[in-house]
Amino acid sequence: MKRIAILGSTGSIGQQALDVIRALPDELKVVGLTGSRNLKVLERQIREFQPKMFCSSVKPDVSHGGQFLSAEDIASHPEVDFVIVATVGKAGLSATLAALRAGKTVALASKEVLVMAGEVVVHEANLHQSQILPVDSEHSAIWQCLQGEEGKAQRLLLTASGGPFYHHSRAELAEVTPEQALRHPVWKMGRKITIDSATLMNKGLEVIEAHWLFSFPFDSIEILIHPQSIVHSMVEFADGSVKAQLSWPDMRLPIQYALSYPRRWPNPELSRLDWSKINSLTFEPVDYDRFPCLNLAVEAGKSGGTYPAVLCAADEVAIELFLSHRIRFTDIAEIVQEALEQHRNISTPSLEDILAADSWARECAARISSGDSKKRAGRDNPARKR
Amino acid sequence: MKRIAILGSTGSIGQQALDVIRALPDELKVVGLTGSRNLKVLERQIREFQPKMFCSSVKPDVSHGGQFLSAEDIASHPEVDFVIVATVGKAGLSATLAALRAGKTVALASKEVLVMAGEVVVHEANLHQSQILPVDSEHSAIWQCLQGEEGKAQRLLLTASGGPFYHHSRAELAEVTPEQALRHPVWKMGRKITIDSATLMNKGLEVIEAHWLFSFPFDSIEILIHPQSIVHSMVEFADGSVKAQLSWPDMRLPIQYALSYPRRWPNPELSRLDWSKINSLTFEPVDYDRFPCLNLAVEAGKSGGTYPAVLCAADEVAIELFLSHRIRFTDIAEIVQEALEQHRNISTPSLEDILAADSWARECAARISSGDSKKRAGRDNPARKR
Repeated sequence: MKRIAILGSTGSIGQQALDVIRALPDELKVVGLTGSRNLKVLERQIREFQPKMFCSSVKPDVSHGGQFLSAEDIASHPEVDFVIVATVGKAGLSATLAALRAGKTVALASKEVLVMAGEVVVHEANLHQSQILPVDSEHSAIWQCLQGEEGKAQRLLLTASGGPFYHHSRAELAEVTPEQALRHPVWKMGRKITIDSATLMNKGLEVIEAHWLFSFPFDSIEILIHPQSIVHSMVEFADGSVKAQLSWPDMRLPIQYALSYPRRWPNPELSRLDWSKINSLTFEPVDYDRFPCLNLAVEAGKSGGTYPAVLCAADEVAIELFLSHRIRFTDIAEIVQEALEQHRNISTPSLEDILAADSWARECAARISSGDSKKRAGRDNPARKR
Repeated sequence: MKRIAILGSTGSIGQQALDVIRALPDELKVVGLTGSRNLKVLERQIREFQPKMFCSSVKPDVSHGGQFLSAEDIASHPEVDFVIVATVGKAGLSATLAALRAGKTVALASKEVLVMAGEVVVHEANLHQSQILPVDSEHSAIWQCLQGEEGKAQRLLLTASGGPFYHHSRAELAEVTPEQALRHPVWKMGRKITIDSATLMNKGLEVIEAHWLFSFPFDSIEILIHPQSIVHSMVEFADGSVKAQLSWPDMRLPIQYALSYPRRWPNPELSRLDWSKINSLTFEPVDYDRFPCLNLAVEAGKSGGTYPAVLCAADEVAIELFLSHRIRFTDIAEIVQEALEQHRNISTPSLEDILAADSWARECAARISSGDSKKRAGRDNPARKR
């Protein structure tokens, strides 16, 4: 029986992880849950799963005898075997490191942890011989394809649905509203990752994540648009043979795979692919020009140091501004780019350097956006044009 | 350095196996070659590869010092490590058994060996702890997908191009000529397998082969039409996740995979998939009604005993008759069906029983076809209809 802590249990991935655990009561047991703002959901989860430990920004109102601990203490607690990190942004970073230092197996659903601090996180995992398992559907697919093929892969092919605007022109992209961007054609996900999917920033972050998870050079990681999201990613081997992993777009499968690894468990809740409903799987090259976030991310990943932390932080701020209608969809990339340009990189950074870069980038992005709004107001004002 | 004997080196697969060996001179060495009727090609191959042993129906005219031995002696020779069986029909059966009894690794490109005598062949392999490796692109794909997943597969999905007539009506199928049937849309192969692909008998034989190679029950082996022949087959696992193996349709890859296993070797001759040229991969359910050979094969496989040998032999005779314009395309299935209906099965047969069933079925098929020709002449003759 695996004893599991879920960091970020009230979010989309956290709730789906609990769905998996609920379906497999003989294999999995929840011992820790952490949430942040969604207290009602956390209280309901605590009542159902009766975890020994829980944590949130406000103390939940529950009567059972669990302990209220910090996320770090839960992640490194002796009664925890397996930590699912399903937090948003940098929130999971320090608890992830605590879990790795305590020798836990960590299933990472929060890609920012590896993007911001890949070098630090991988170093701690190696030092304490802790395992990091992917939960993202793309990385889970690659991991599945690599089974039994250690050392033989030569190229990773990350698939991307392309999001809701893949065939929009630049002019159309500038007019995209938050409401439109929150409607993803395939995946139902949290708000931040949904916007990141629409800008393709998400795919760029996944390239960086793949680089750290699989120790693969950036030049051997490619992106392929695949709107149906059935092929979750592929691996090309030394002899040119390619393996792909396929399933319905359902995050419960990669979550369960991480939990069951190295086994695979039957779960009647996970529906099998029905080939009578799949007529065609299509693929097209990715357009880096219309989706500049992709290149920004890959270049930040290649440059390394504190650049990826700046990328993540500036992106998070820009998305908040976009969702509150204060900037345009296409401004997200511009703000991130300007923050990266203004940043003075620290190579081989410590965790403190990374967190400092994060804070700096948040302020910088806010500053850029207020400047930007003025510039844009200027541009858009016909009176000024004369 | 692997020392290799190729049984059937002058055929399509044999020649492609030599292409692979030619490209990898540091890893692979030819020590034995056997051909049958194509003496000119065999002589050229002997001059190029200078094998220590060779065999054919007529003694080749070559001056180097190799030995002229039987196929069985070559397959079991102490200086051979690895035997590629690329013969047609039952020709490779006895040499395959000799190789397995001598503990050789056998790469099977001749599916009839396992179809006709699966139980006997698998028994000998287990007894002598010899490995049987698949070379058929579909079975190689399944084998690749099973790497690192032992005991976790629950369903095999064999893909089929559908051959040149997949969307023909029954009436159109009856009018197909040998010349049309020999033009396969994707694969360039030998004559017999090309006709078997057009009737889908080939896919039925592959189901039986998959049953023996992977110890999978017939009900867990499914067929999916996939005209592009890029996805060579798929495996579904216990949790519903599916893995697929993809590559250009090029037999040199599965041949090389069997030779390199458990490694994978780079080979510049094998071109990588170019995703800018792959727009769409399509899939459709198989139509058992218009392609009765498929069900005949699967049912013969399920019934076991000497039925699969009868299936193969009757099919081989019927194809010869079709290629010499003596029966129609749709008569192939009718002749095979009638031979199976007339056959008195022997369950758990010996090799002798299998060879006797083969001989019986050849005579039976010839007898049926001559009867059939008369019947058909009767049906087709308008004068008789009155």
